[in-house]
Amino acid sequence: MKLTILGCYSATPRILTNPTSQVLETKGHMFLIDCGEGTQVQLRKHKVKFSRIKHVFISHLHGDHFFGLVGLISTFRLLTREADLHIYGPKGIKEIITLQMKLADSWTNYKLIFHELTSKESELIFEDEKVEVHTIPLNHRIYTNGFLFKEKAGKRKLNIAAVENANINVAYYRKLTQGFDVVNEDGVTIKNETVTRSGNKPKSYAFCSDTMYKEDIVPIIENTDVLYHESTFLETQAHIALRTKHSTAKEAAKIAKKANVGKLLLGHYSTRYKGLDAFKAEAKEVFEAVELSEDGKVFEF
Amino acid sequence: MKLTILGCYSATPRILTNPTSQVLETKGHMFLIDCGEGTQVQLRKHKVKFSRIKHVFISHLHGDHFFGLVGLISTFRLLTREADLHIYGPKGIKEIITLQMKLADSWTNYKLIFHELTSKESELIFEDEKVEVHTIPLNHRIYTNGFLFKEKAGKRKLNIAAVENANINVAYYRKLTQGFDVVNEDGVTIKNETVTRSGNKPKSYAFCSDTMYKEDIVPIIENTDVLYHESTFLETQAHIALRTKHSTAKEAAKIAKKANVGKLLLGHYSTRYKGLDAFKAEAKEVFEAVELSEDGKVFEF
Repeated sequence: MKLTILGCYSATPRILTNPTSQVLETKGHMFLIDCGEGTQVQLRKHKVKFSRIKHVFISHLHGDHFFGLVGLISTFRLLTREADLHIYGPKGIKEIITLQMKLADSWTNYKLIFHELTSKESELIFEDEKVEVHTIPLNHRIYTNGFLFKEKAGKRKLNIAAVENANINVAYYRKLTQGFDVVNEDGVTIKNETVTRSGNKPKSYAFCSDTMYKEDIVPIIENTDVLYHESTFLETQAHIALRTKHSTAKEAAKIAKKANVGKLLLGHYSTRYKGLDAFKAEAKEVFEAVELSEDGKVFEF
Repeated sequence: MKLTILGCYSATPRILTNPTSQVLETKGHMFLIDCGEGTQVQLRKHKVKFSRIKHVFISHLHGDHFFGLVGLISTFRLLTREADLHIYGPKGIKEIITLQMKLADSWTNYKLIFHELTSKESELIFEDEKVEVHTIPLNHRIYTNGFLFKEKAGKRKLNIAAVENANINVAYYRKLTQGFDVVNEDGVTIKNETVTRSGNKPKSYAFCSDTMYKEDIVPIIENTDVLYHESTFLETQAHIALRTKHSTAKEAAKIAKKANVGKLLLGHYSTRYKGLDAFKAEAKEVFEAVELSEDGKVFEF
């Protein structure tokens, strides 16, 4: 998985800090997660081949998470896009976008497919042979979901020496990579695990923003490789976090620890702070494997 | 008048080119004209004290002219603005903004006053003691207005020597600056123009974008000091200009000439062209006093 942070600051876009948006590349997909104002310029700046985006996931309808969406949709139209575009987001998002297209008399020349979310339980919202996407119900001032991206187990790898040794016809090799037992040239059944080993470990990524500390997301995101969890504030502003339904860096780290994730990425920083080091230091007191999101940073895992 | 070009390119925002937005400062006002995506960052970049904006004029509801408005409104809320904000724009603009505020459950803490425009005739939409703003009905694919900003004539200046010579009591000086005749200490009526001269010449600015060539705007913008007229294309693409209801640089110059304006500013360039020199050259063949708008450029007149 390759994650490009386009913006990881809260509230208003500024000259050097952008509101929330990320691109996750996995198994041939390019998933766009949130789309604050200026996202299309960030995509250009970081040389993301954004015509490849086919699925956009919007966490909630606060402006710093979706004000760039209508512009991106309209740019795709100007670039004469033909591929379908799927938008996953809270109920109301379709009305916002279509109202603006109607008043501009500018309908897209490609198919725009809205998947409006209303459930308060985690649900599977996208699936193909290689990837699943589930919602992670969060607790913010308005209806909000995080998103869990899970690769499916890949093909098993052949242990070539063992396969040849077992006298298996080459026609069965594909069955073996799919995990099946096969019958060899001598009519003997060969157990799959004796001649193959597991393929690449399927990776997972959880995006949780915006939310206050919410322990019941732990079972959903347990053991994910990378968790992005918002940390708008430091503990010194815990009272503001509580009032505005955001999290502190320490709270993000507590969730990471309880969920036993591989790595925690902090983000959605309030622009009131001068630097980001204090966020990392605060989280590290609770959970060791912490990294800071920064606009333009790329994480591969 | 001081005009700051925040963005003067058409269609999609790019790394170095911004969609339409301008700030006009005159007589203590800071008028924002159009507000494409990224305008709030451009305001910061060019150090415009944008909390002073009280009136926003939106020409039409194509995204490159207003997708930045909802973000600016929401930033004003975060900056705890208290002053009223007036929005002038086509019918529908109120629904777009309020729908997004409703779904975000984020109403402004200041008064947002919409003035929705529907008239196809030029109308006076703003007036105080010092300035008037009139619409300029344009011809584009959807309902569009340009805007004419006119300073009112200022106070007359006293010719001090003449006033003293005429034996006028100092109590009447204010009346004289307002243009009235007065009676002097000897009971003689003194004609105003014999003891005063006209004050600063009132300035005017006309913004015309987007529009195809439309000669009947000439009487409205006649003799304005500065005209910004869109020139999306060069004559070599005149057929595209016609089809998309835009103008060429030559057509902009023809309007400037017929209206006898002081200076023509070109803008709203299609991003298909490599440089801007050809726009200026083409317009200059018809009208001499041409300048190119560029993002960040400031014109004082």
